[in-house]
Amino acid sequence: MGPATHYLDIEEPFLMYRGGELPALRIAWETWGTLNPARDNAILLFTGLSPGAHAASSPVDPAPGWWEDMVGPGKPIDTDRFFVICANSLGSCKGSTGPASINPATGKPWRLHFPELAIEDIARATRLVTDHLGIGKLYAVIGPSMGGFTALAWLKQYPGSTARLGLISTACSATPFAISIRSLQREAIVTDRNFHNGDYSEDEWPEVGMRLARKLGMITYRSAGEWQRRFGRKRQDYFPSTLFGMRFDVESYLETHARKFVGQFDPCSYLYLSRAMDLFDACDSDETLKNLFRRCFTGHALVIGVETDILFPLHQQRDLAGALESSGSEVTFEALPSVQGHDAFLVDFERFEQPFRDWLA
Amino acid sequence: MGPATHYLDIEEPFLMYRGGELPALRIAWETWGTLNPARDNAILLFTGLSPGAHAASSPVDPAPGWWEDMVGPGKPIDTDRFFVICANSLGSCKGSTGPASINPATGKPWRLHFPELAIEDIARATRLVTDHLGIGKLYAVIGPSMGGFTALAWLKQYPGSTARLGLISTACSATPFAISIRSLQREAIVTDRNFHNGDYSEDEWPEVGMRLARKLGMITYRSAGEWQRRFGRKRQDYFPSTLFGMRFDVESYLETHARKFVGQFDPCSYLYLSRAMDLFDACDSDETLKNLFRRCFTGHALVIGVETDILFPLHQQRDLAGALESSGSEVTFEALPSVQGHDAFLVDFERFEQPFRDWLA
Repeated sequence: MGPATHYLDIEEPFLMYRGGELPALRIAWETWGTLNPARDNAILLFTGLSPGAHAASSPVDPAPGWWEDMVGPGKPIDTDRFFVICANSLGSCKGSTGPASINPATGKPWRLHFPELAIEDIARATRLVTDHLGIGKLYAVIGPSMGGFTALAWLKQYPGSTARLGLISTACSATPFAISIRSLQREAIVTDRNFHNGDYSEDEWPEVGMRLARKLGMITYRSAGEWQRRFGRKRQDYFPSTLFGMRFDVESYLETHARKFVGQFDPCSYLYLSRAMDLFDACDSDETLKNLFRRCFTGHALVIGVETDILFPLHQQRDLAGALESSGSEVTFEALPSVQGHDAFLVDFERFEQPFRDWLA
Repeated sequence: MGPATHYLDIEEPFLMYRGGELPALRIAWETWGTLNPARDNAILLFTGLSPGAHAASSPVDPAPGWWEDMVGPGKPIDTDRFFVICANSLGSCKGSTGPASINPATGKPWRLHFPELAIEDIARATRLVTDHLGIGKLYAVIGPSMGGFTALAWLKQYPGSTARLGLISTACSATPFAISIRSLQREAIVTDRNFHNGDYSEDEWPEVGMRLARKLGMITYRSAGEWQRRFGRKRQDYFPSTLFGMRFDVESYLETHARKFVGQFDPCSYLYLSRAMDLFDACDSDETLKNLFRRCFTGHALVIGVETDILFPLHQQRDLAGALESSGSEVTFEALPSVQGHDAFLVDFERFEQPFRDWLA
């Protein structure tokens, strides 16, 4: 949340996809660029698990956003041409309603009393924002990682609502490998001595579990090859020689990232979003992916995958591209040889830039 | 430990590779087959991190061993021809001295007061057994996984001591990816609320940490492709619907394996062996791998790697085979297309059998 954040407050019950309801709802969002009079230059951006609505800096909020190099004037997602919208996901903790928000019935945070979250709920809550802005058909919907799940959940619920679809390092559902990683991350959090079944306090925070979860995340976000080049077996021998403390550079790198993350994300939000990712399946109503696209999307799709991604492996983006193509859409498919794994879309802009420029031209 | 286990007790100080000493030492070991009069048919088998000396069944102990399909009469490592020796690694907890053993100075388990363990110590403690058996040059030394590290540590300390060298799903040192995984496993154990800096008791065991460590291990021992085929997104819907409990088959599989492991392995043993693996580097004295082999080994080497192994990736076995070849040894190198990842040597016998038969013929 920053000076450019807008909030949409809905004072009506929001029925959740898997049952239960929220008595009211707040969604935090930001926009860049200007909506044209025809209202047909809007691009909706869904986020990965942890980022908020602040995708890029702006005159009002100069802090760099999570996709700073991709979104802005003259950038691949060009805000001189497009009106870009990004919302914080429902269930997250960066301005939108989630398990860390106050449950009006109790006056205390929802935590584990929050109803089960589905990716479909995130899409539907974001729809409230585009409705509020008076936007009908979108120029493009773009989702990297978990955001790709949300883009698919959006399409299923709002067929024909976008002319372009950008699916980046994502899939139609999670692999058992990805599920096993997230299952372990959740187990580390819920078994933390401070978790107390969700009743943790500022003073007793499940830090250990969150640190383990983040480190395990980092291991799957990057690639073994990148670390081989970057860290090799370099050690920090100025550390006191301890049996089980940090010593290798790679251990220190993970620790740095984990420390940054621990205070920034609510453990229950993490659990809900993580589980929602596992459970999402674009084909859960026994519809084939090809039929889903035939029913919900006709236009120009951009599908990008990275050869070294172990969390959303390349065969998953091939499947998406194949289904889109056979459903009759125009598809640009890029298999990038980046060494930075799943996180490449957040760091390897040289490779991601041109496909976006060509696709949105 | 079973009815076929032998014990070698050394009542003399054992100086550790990285400093410190053990006042006395016990090594548990088993043998299969018969040592011939020339004493030149002995094969020494080093183990991975967790197995004990019981590599195979025998009339005395019919319980299946950890390499049951590979070791025995008529099997690839044929005990009708060879005298096979396997010892429990120093630092482990299956009969040999380790952090779970009693420290004679205090009458209590060593735990974190055990001196730092090096792979070189495991090799040297095993040498006490072959000396005890009156064995000079070995017919073969074989090491899978961590056992491959031990085989290299053996060679460095006892140049020219074997005619054949079998390096299976192993490397000359760990990758930063493997180090990061093991670092996380150790962190899960030492942060367990019951770990108490090593002073855990039978009643308060660091079960949660050990369970997480084992699950993370399983994730890196197998391959994403195997799980895709085996589990896909199958769920156990007869489980009560819980937000963060098990539901997918892959989660239940991990839980089953973790439960089996928790009571069977001492947490401190795990920590010491795990860290010893990270720190091992066959080339730590700035000797190239090629020179190391030129100095310590001339003979016929078998190097096997598996395409889907993420813990000891195939490029590491290629490096070993390349160095062996350029050092003048005969090398059989096999890159197996098994889907079972690092664990393939423990389960995919169809692929491993023939290379062993040909090499030992």
